[in-house]
Amino acid sequence: MTSYKLTYFNIRGRGEVVRILFKLAGVDFEDQRIEFPDEWMEYKAKTPFGRLPILEVDGKQLTESKAIMRYLAREFGFYGDTNWGRSQVDCVLDMLEDFHVDANKMFYAQAEERDRIVAEAKVRSLEILANLEKKLKENNNGDGFFVGNKITIADVLFFCETFFVPALTGDKEIIKGFPKLLALRDRVGQNQRIAAWVAQRPQTAF
Amino acid sequence: MTSYKLTYFNIRGRGEVVRILFKLAGVDFEDQRIEFPDEWMEYKAKTPFGRLPILEVDGKQLTESKAIMRYLAREFGFYGDTNWGRSQVDCVLDMLEDFHVDANKMFYAQAEERDRIVAEAKVRSLEILANLEKKLKENNNGDGFFVGNKITIADVLFFCETFFVPALTGDKEIIKGFPKLLALRDRVGQNQRIAAWVAQRPQTAF
Repeated sequence: MTSYKLTYFNIRGRGEVVRILFKLAGVDFEDQRIEFPDEWMEYKAKTPFGRLPILEVDGKQLTESKAIMRYLAREFGFYGDTNWGRSQVDCVLDMLEDFHVDANKMFYAQAEERDRIVAEAKVRSLEILANLEKKLKENNNGDGFFVGNKITIADVLFFCETFFVPALTGDKEIIKGFPKLLALRDRVGQNQRIAAWVAQRPQTAF
Repeated sequence: MTSYKLTYFNIRGRGEVVRILFKLAGVDFEDQRIEFPDEWMEYKAKTPFGRLPILEVDGKQLTESKAIMRYLAREFGFYGDTNWGRSQVDCVLDMLEDFHVDANKMFYAQAEERDRIVAEAKVRSLEILANLEKKLKENNNGDGFFVGNKITIADVLFFCETFFVPALTGDKEIIKGFPKLLALRDRVGQNQRIAAWVAQRPQTAF
């Protein structure tokens, strides 16, 4: 049996999508959590590229959260069944990545830039959400999943990312204007395995 | 025979990696170039998500440059031969995406922020390049390609991106400190099909 170990900070952040994929697949993994900053500086020196998450697969290390997500999606069957289907999954993942353009700006911003960045993030996030709603509607009138007839990493990553968009944009209700996306988020959250994990996972601020 | 049409601005930018993949595979495609801003506003209304590039495959539209790149890489065999190999390709692609954190900051910056952003971009780009050099060395001592024994999209995207890093960081020589990466860039550029395209492609500023 393959042994999996995920090492990430003790937050949801970029690592939560990976944890959810394991839960969704019903596959055991070790969920190692590094406390930041207390444990990080010492641990950082042991990492190949000075960053987390790291997935170990029978001891072999894979870095970069999206590379890890795609690896597990291919392994567990959450990545579409055809090349075209996979391209549609990739398209949604790329659209979701655009939230991080503003998240990164926020992360590296000076204090006096904050208000302007939040305002810009809201404008751009509304565009991204409108495009995602349109993309969702291309498939089964938006009443199923982003691609095909079953859950893929496009849905799971969307589920994870939309919980930080309200904080990024200063608008707690931002997703309410997109009814198909809201219903999708509920549908993903109601998956039994995901709901069970969300109910028992460590509570962290973000 | 499958018909391919790429629509992008008349620059290299995010579209060039796609054009190079067609050339590398020896597959014909229509290379439609939209002049910005003169043709763009009218054309934008015709696009599904208000953005380019768009790849049409027998008339079906795919958006997002990296989704297009991955689609063609799977179609043409430039994406590694195993799931683990694909994950290594993805890892390099994700590392390269980090250059765009700073490129995006630059794109959206106010004039007075420019010098600070260039300085920060240089610090971060040196880290990214050091990690890429280390990653390259994990495979064949860094004397071949990023993954396995033949060219993949990891090498091609690296080839495309490293030409904008000097402009981003204000340091024309920045890649010279990384001899394995420099040799890889030369190796990719010396591929006959790529060299032929580079010699004849439309000359654009970036």
